[in-house]
Amino acid sequence: MFEKILIANRGEIALRVHRACRELGIKTVAVHSTADAEAMHVRLADEAVCIGPPSATDSYLNVANIISAAEITHADAIHPGYGFLSENAKFAEIVRDHRIGWIGPSPEHIRMMGDKVQAKKTAAEIGLPLVPGSDGAVGSVEEAIEVANEIGYPVLVKAASGGGGRGMKVIPDAASLAGLMAQAKSEAKAAFGDDTVYIEKYLGNPRHIEFQVFGDNFGNAVHLGERDCSLQRRHQKVLEEAPSPALNTKQREEMGETVRQAIAKLGYQGAGTIEFLYEDGQFYFIEMNTRLQVEHPVTEQITGIDLVREQIRVAAGLPLSVSQADIRFEGHAIECRINAEDPVTFAPSPGQVTDYHAPGGLHVRVDSALYDNYRIPPYYDSLIAKLIVYGSTRNECLARLHRALEEYVINGPKTTIPLHQRLIEDPEFIDGDYSIKWLENWLAAKAGA
Amino acid sequence: MFEKILIANRGEIALRVHRACRELGIKTVAVHSTADAEAMHVRLADEAVCIGPPSATDSYLNVANIISAAEITHADAIHPGYGFLSENAKFAEIVRDHRIGWIGPSPEHIRMMGDKVQAKKTAAEIGLPLVPGSDGAVGSVEEAIEVANEIGYPVLVKAASGGGGRGMKVIPDAASLAGLMAQAKSEAKAAFGDDTVYIEKYLGNPRHIEFQVFGDNFGNAVHLGERDCSLQRRHQKVLEEAPSPALNTKQREEMGETVRQAIAKLGYQGAGTIEFLYEDGQFYFIEMNTRLQVEHPVTEQITGIDLVREQIRVAAGLPLSVSQADIRFEGHAIECRINAEDPVTFAPSPGQVTDYHAPGGLHVRVDSALYDNYRIPPYYDSLIAKLIVYGSTRNECLARLHRALEEYVINGPKTTIPLHQRLIEDPEFIDGDYSIKWLENWLAAKAGA
Repeated sequence: MFEKILIANRGEIALRVHRACRELGIKTVAVHSTADAEAMHVRLADEAVCIGPPSATDSYLNVANIISAAEITHADAIHPGYGFLSENAKFAEIVRDHRIGWIGPSPEHIRMMGDKVQAKKTAAEIGLPLVPGSDGAVGSVEEAIEVANEIGYPVLVKAASGGGGRGMKVIPDAASLAGLMAQAKSEAKAAFGDDTVYIEKYLGNPRHIEFQVFGDNFGNAVHLGERDCSLQRRHQKVLEEAPSPALNTKQREEMGETVRQAIAKLGYQGAGTIEFLYEDGQFYFIEMNTRLQVEHPVTEQITGIDLVREQIRVAAGLPLSVSQADIRFEGHAIECRINAEDPVTFAPSPGQVTDYHAPGGLHVRVDSALYDNYRIPPYYDSLIAKLIVYGSTRNECLARLHRALEEYVINGPKTTIPLHQRLIEDPEFIDGDYSIKWLENWLAAKAGA
Repeated sequence: MFEKILIANRGEIALRVHRACRELGIKTVAVHSTADAEAMHVRLADEAVCIGPPSATDSYLNVANIISAAEITHADAIHPGYGFLSENAKFAEIVRDHRIGWIGPSPEHIRMMGDKVQAKKTAAEIGLPLVPGSDGAVGSVEEAIEVANEIGYPVLVKAASGGGGRGMKVIPDAASLAGLMAQAKSEAKAAFGDDTVYIEKYLGNPRHIEFQVFGDNFGNAVHLGERDCSLQRRHQKVLEEAPSPALNTKQREEMGETVRQAIAKLGYQGAGTIEFLYEDGQFYFIEMNTRLQVEHPVTEQITGIDLVREQIRVAAGLPLSVSQADIRFEGHAIECRINAEDPVTFAPSPGQVTDYHAPGGLHVRVDSALYDNYRIPPYYDSLIAKLIVYGSTRNECLARLHRALEEYVINGPKTTIPLHQRLIEDPEFIDGDYSIKWLENWLAAKAGA
């Protein structure tokens, strides 16, 4: 087992990793920017190294400084958390080249899944269902019409180099295809310098459902069930739950077994998440994240398994501590992401925390690096706390979440606590009746009301 | 179901009950002394009523004021928590006479178990094993010798009206019986005005193991396993764990079934705890507590069952939400009682909390009514927080407890956090190798070292 782990991250996830290390008897090294000298992850670590100025590019993304920090502190492994360098295959390679343990999947797998086209190709090869569509770029309108006829309207035309909805059009019927495809190509050219487009089945109202997976160096592969992360604003997840209100046990077992076999086929080592869109009983692969997710705690709550501990075990060459047969799903868990943002306008709200009091009691978990009088720096992600609540049923979980949100005191910055309080009182949310479009519509309706 | 519950208590247990009410959609009424106007339980309740000056006799034990508070707020039930009026049969009767729901067992059961002699008689009748001894008072030395010969030396002579070790003597052999019995009688007379004594088997090195039980109005009775509360100082529990390191599954099931049947025979309604001494594989009934225990959270953690919710359900005339077959014991939980006391001298240390930060993360629970800048009043019990940690194994639980204690910040008053930190590093504690005498010996050895 490792003796000392450098945590190449900040905020709640650095603290999360620190806790797992402590519980395994592993010493920790924090790295931090000058803006984070007083941060909780720095205060609790055994050692701390300043790796640069506030700008993440010069600190938390500064590979040379992070490697140096690991070397001078004799850390024998690096945990990247999520974000920052966690899905940077080059960084993983450099870490390994320096004979430092890398707590993540192999650089090859990171690279394979980081490239959209390659990821889809691989997903198909390992048996994951894709969104039906053109096999790569469509060169001509005729070709596009042929594909669209095959999969049925409406279809989506998308920029190959795209993202964030640019160069993307919904095509309702054959008559409008040529015109909308031309628009998409011209937007794509303007935005990405590349007018290559492809065609996909259009999903009108899907959910975002992802499966947590794990593999080790001994050929073991497991899935830990799904998380429903459909509640998103501008592609940012806001609230996640496990299990999904939309799946029954049979669907979970079937799809779980599909992803488990896929991971085994891939020879994947470490934690990963396979994200799907889900509509009308069908799953469609979106992407695979080759790292820990922000929302991993909901899986921990319903399985009782410490995912960071498993990551460390696997990276240290130990087998997974659980087999698929050991993994049971019990109860329901919801995570609220609490951001330092105005709950209506979503404008960032960093600054001094004048009062801090976390909720407690039965089945309430708080993952946060906040403390009283802490000053939230303006340079980083606005996520300041995750409130994770468990209940034996979804209704019990919601009732507990209600009271925990009520107890949570974060004065000073504005936070999204009031947003969550309103959200969990909405009848459609209470019924679990939502898709990835639901939250934006709900916010628009609230803004109009 | 009740609509509004008055919580006739303060501190962490008032907050605990408030949380259960909130999660059931029940409104809460806090009562408080003038010293507790700023207390957390007052701040969070829907309504609050001041019931008197700081002295508990005039406030938290003031039956008339508490009943008045319930009447003016139209509370339809009272939860007494633990301590204060929770085992006062007269209070339970008065509550019921005022047509207010009483969240506890019947006054008859409270009275029956509150009287030591009656409790033992009842325990025997319902099939619980007693410490072998004289059947009631021993009148003469001759009678005492006869009993002692039957159960075997050493024996204990104890004052019938006694407590706290006064009027109690260990008798090693027949030769010393007459002299020590005379001493015991004379101490008893001086301390309690009553020189009645009885004789019991002397247990040299027992553990304190108690079973959590529950009954409802439909004849259902269940046990929720045991708690090991052997770590005591001056008869005050310091740290509790479930399951007991001393029991195996077979012993748990057998003794659990014995207590379950006893509770069923008793027709007991609500939560209760049957306390035993345990030595050499044998259980000996000590007493039954007809209320919630301070240490109930460790049972909640290993069963997943909300005990306060069950109390409220049963009092509202609903059946228990679980049958014995539903109850599973998984993993291990430890509770550290954190007192505002010097961790070496145990001198009370009330006053202003200058910094407060509770630990968080996976499987860490804090039940505490503390908050930053709260002033701990000097009038009440020194218990200020309970840190409850869960792990899939006892070792995992201990590792997590270690890191959670390290994260816990309570500045201002002295607390027993450092005591717990030293305690859980002791090899004998780590091995689970301790009895009810262990902690006092350990403290004496530390004081001498």
